[in-house]
Amino acid sequence: MENVQAPTAALLTPETLLKHWQGHRGLTRRVIEAFPEKDLFEFAIGGMRTFAVLAMEIIDLTGPGIKGLATGEWSQGPMPHHSGEGMSKTKEELLTLWDETTKRLEIYWPQIPVEKFDDKVKAFGMYDGTILSSILYFMDNEVHHRAQGYVYLRALGIEPPAFWDRP
Amino acid sequence: MENVQAPTAALLTPETLLKHWQGHRGLTRRVIEAFPEKDLFEFAIGGMRTFAVLAMEIIDLTGPGIKGLATGEWSQGPMPHHSGEGMSKTKEELLTLWDETTKRLEIYWPQIPVEKFDDKVKAFGMYDGTILSSILYFMDNEVHHRAQGYVYLRALGIEPPAFWDRP
Repeated sequence: MENVQAPTAALLTPETLLKHWQGHRGLTRRVIEAFPEKDLFEFAIGGMRTFAVLAMEIIDLTGPGIKGLATGEWSQGPMPHHSGEGMSKTKEELLTLWDETTKRLEIYWPQIPVEKFDDKVKAFGMYDGTILSSILYFMDNEVHHRAQGYVYLRALGIEPPAFWDRP
Repeated sequence: MENVQAPTAALLTPETLLKHWQGHRGLTRRVIEAFPEKDLFEFAIGGMRTFAVLAMEIIDLTGPGIKGLATGEWSQGPMPHHSGEGMSKTKEELLTLWDETTKRLEIYWPQIPVEKFDDKVKAFGMYDGTILSSILYFMDNEVHHRAQGYVYLRALGIEPPAFWDRP
């Protein structure tokens, strides 16, 4: 029975999935950094939200999300920062919150045992799914909104960081 | 030993991953459909490529990519369509190619045994990785470029399909 988890390793382990996500998070952080301070909070296209607000949505899903998935506690509600007074006012504040979220992910992730990824959850008390489907949603949502930041940067004449560069 | 693969099922099976990808592909198809014919091939922001070309890149990675990963044959090279004479001239042609790619994915995917996902490959004869990392790259790249299409649609005053709607 020593090898019982070997087939898991062959497809995707929790460690691999977390590393993949953190690679994406590192890239998203560099996209935040690439914005001029003013444009981060003011520039948008077609009535969309600024990249600061999009980044804050990612923070709001990821931080409270991973805690909720690991502990079942969703007391913060879905959107504590980006729609209220917790919204960062500067790039530095936003990056600090980003880094706290990165650490939070490292803390709570190992508290989810591999056999629980298929458990049903109601994320943020509202969204039906499993632990895994919620995590995939958070990740996809990050790639989605980050890519919108790429278009903002291009429209501003700024070269974004390379999409494939996620060490 | 009957239960040896149970932990795989708990995290992510090839079937679950394919279903997740096809859900994304269905959404990307609806984003293509949402573009007016002319804008699909002509509209862009900040010197970026049109959404037709971005969609064709997704086709070029996914179709030849899944065949290469399943069979080891990469003879088509990385980009047969979007940079050459294979480039679709109409939305209808593009959607037809899209649907052929969707079918191709269904055909080749089951030919990759679960225990091979961790095998090293050089995708398109150029990109070092594993079968799984290549697949994740193709999927992430699709979400990334599709999201750029969302910004184009918003800039055109068109409401894009809901990001979370991936049945």
